[in-house]
Amino acid sequence: MSKLPNVTTSIFTVMSKMAIEYNAINLSQGFPNFPVDERLTDIVARLAKENVHQYTPMAGYPPLMNKIAKLTQSSYNRTINPDTDLLVTAGATQGIFTTILALVKENDEVIILDPSYDSYESPVLLCKAKPVRVALNDDYTPNWERIEKACSVKTRMMIINNPHNPTGKILTENDFVQLKKLLEKHPDIIILSDEVYEYITFEEKHISAHTKDFLLDRCVMVSSFGKSFHITGWKIGYTIAPEHLMKEIKKVHQFLVFSVNSISQFAISEYLDVVDVNLLGKFYQEKRDYFQKLLQNSRFELKPCEGTYFQVASYANISDQDDVSFCKNLIIDHGVAAIPISTFYSDHKDQKLIRFCFAKDNHTLESAAKKLCDI
Amino acid sequence: MSKLPNVTTSIFTVMSKMAIEYNAINLSQGFPNFPVDERLTDIVARLAKENVHQYTPMAGYPPLMNKIAKLTQSSYNRTINPDTDLLVTAGATQGIFTTILALVKENDEVIILDPSYDSYESPVLLCKAKPVRVALNDDYTPNWERIEKACSVKTRMMIINNPHNPTGKILTENDFVQLKKLLEKHPDIIILSDEVYEYITFEEKHISAHTKDFLLDRCVMVSSFGKSFHITGWKIGYTIAPEHLMKEIKKVHQFLVFSVNSISQFAISEYLDVVDVNLLGKFYQEKRDYFQKLLQNSRFELKPCEGTYFQVASYANISDQDDVSFCKNLIIDHGVAAIPISTFYSDHKDQKLIRFCFAKDNHTLESAAKKLCDI
Ligand SMILES: CSCCC(=O)C(=O)O
Ligand SMILES: CSCCC(=O)C(=O)O
Repeated sequence: MSKLPNVTTSIFTVMSKMAIEYNAINLSQGFPNFPVDERLTDIVARLAKENVHQYTPMAGYPPLMNKIAKLTQSSYNRTINPDTDLLVTAGATQGIFTTILALVKENDEVIILDPSYDSYESPVLLCKAKPVRVALNDDYTPNWERIEKACSVKTRMMIINNPHNPTGKILTENDFVQLKKLLEKHPDIIILSDEVYEYITFEEKHISAHTKDFLLDRCVMVSSFGKSFHITGWKIGYTIAPEHLMKEIKKVHQFLVFSVNSISQFAISEYLDVVDVNLLGKFYQEKRDYFQKLLQNSRFELKPCEGTYFQVASYANISDQDDVSFCKNLIIDHGVAAIPISTFYSDHKDQKLIRFCFAKDNHTLESAAKKLCDI
Repeated sequence: MSKLPNVTTSIFTVMSKMAIEYNAINLSQGFPNFPVDERLTDIVARLAKENVHQYTPMAGYPPLMNKIAKLTQSSYNRTINPDTDLLVTAGATQGIFTTILALVKENDEVIILDPSYDSYESPVLLCKAKPVRVALNDDYTPNWERIEKACSVKTRMMIINNPHNPTGKILTENDFVQLKKLLEKHPDIIILSDEVYEYITFEEKHISAHTKDFLLDRCVMVSSFGKSFHITGWKIGYTIAPEHLMKEIKKVHQFLVFSVNSISQFAISEYLDVVDVNLLGKFYQEKRDYFQKLLQNSRFELKPCEGTYFQVASYANISDQDDVSFCKNLIIDHGVAAIPISTFYSDHKDQKLIRFCFAKDNHTLESAAKKLCDI
């Protein structure tokens, strides 16, 4: 009956709701709780009184599109044509959904790594295509041998997420060498590269798909201002693709949403003139370091975190419960909300791991850590 | 190759672009050019400085959802449960697309009237279902005999648009009697009722699908604040459906966009406390009357307009050109942009008809009319 029989309420909704219900500190769903840059909110307050309230063009507000092209140039030395290669979307989620719907056909196969962010599989199923899950290595690096084995003539797309939610892992130069080899053998595979945390990396620099020439004509890159500017509620993202793919993506976009919130587009366009995205990595690195230090004497064992604003932690020393139960009890008994990692696995296997979001003001991190250290 | 081989750039994009290029008065794409209510822009300016920038819940910002339920109660005396029957969407377009994607399956048939707004057919095709076009009568009323003949066991959905874009026609009590009879014979058909112009009707009152008990458990109603509050760029709409359908719609929404622009939702929620949607009909009736009066001595023949902010006009007395050529030349030679009606027909048949949008300040209507009277 249902076209998505296995979809239930998202864990992000469940945990955020429970956090409110129990008045817990919410380190579950990924969103910042500190104020947005005043320069950006000043722009919004001023723009509200201007002529910014009607449809922008279908593919996006042109000045914003030019600024995104400039940002891509300065960040990755990659020249894109905003007229042909760029689409402004209602968040990265809409970019991902629209791309899959436009490019994946019935009976195609789509490689999705395991674990993965939870929004890749459903659009593939809606296309009547087959998600093919390939397990990451134990350290969350891609296992290129397994990936290659999983590819077939039916494989139309492979989805990568770099930096990776929930594990915080980033791809290395060697990963791209392996990817290149793979794609040479499979000329029909397109890469969908979800890079919403592109500016949130720490010791190692993020290697964007943009920087790889071999991906130029076969990669769709999706990103989001929500993560980069602490405005997850605005739902403004962008999708970059070579013209032959973007043409198809735009066809779907035109009927899926037509255009995207105008004020937000005007505001981000102005803000891009003054903001320095390169400060973001340092900002979140300090948060990560502080959060890790605060949990140093807890019984949680913290995994490495190379990017994103998520910290994965093992509670194997604390409890035998499965991770969903552990997270629920963590809210009820200790007043802290987190996300169970099983959520990101196709088979929902429990690994005694949970994910904390550290995009929070220091006071919140301190209060949460205090509770977590008491366990 | 393409999943939507017949989709080209939307006529709204083409005409709005050309209007800018030739510095023409743009009566093509449907959007107001007068300022938004200061009470609403004041709310936005104030909210910009508040905590309104992170994800709202998946189905919408709860206070806004309660206000929409109240609005539905006061407008149509219909009680809806915001928790189970309501979804806030990125414009009505996203509501329509999401509904079709969630409820229509491969090989299903979907009845679409002809002419129709242009965004119903593509989502049906993306589901690998079949759009079945049924011509309206010459006066743009539904031909219920033809509709009944077009229905089969495969028919899953019928899409109605009331008030109707582009013709301005509204459904009558008798139409709903016929619809009821039809649905009695076809228990599996769902109605998708696009009512984005619900508050823009004139001599006759709008009859919403909400007011019909026989539709309660089989109708998805889609609307938009863009039209009601003169904020087409905000892209905030809503979808109302019985729980068993809404459950499926939400499953798709969760992965299609997850949630919708937060500031806009907060702002509309407050604005709904002070705005009176019942003034809208009178406001646009005056515009319609004024525009019709201004064109009284032109060679255009104006069709009746019962609702929406669109005026259909015949140019048969003026030119033999097909409507697309006529519209292009109207921009180039006379500085006024309109929409060719053939766009809304599945076979794009030319009827020497064009559509003007009269959601413009009086000065704009006067300047446009002056040019149109000179032809
Ligand atoms: C869209 S809700 C999920 C937010 C998020 O990116 C995450 O918490 O992983
Ligand atoms: C989404 S662009 C089209 C706007 C509109 O509703 C119309 O002009 O008919």
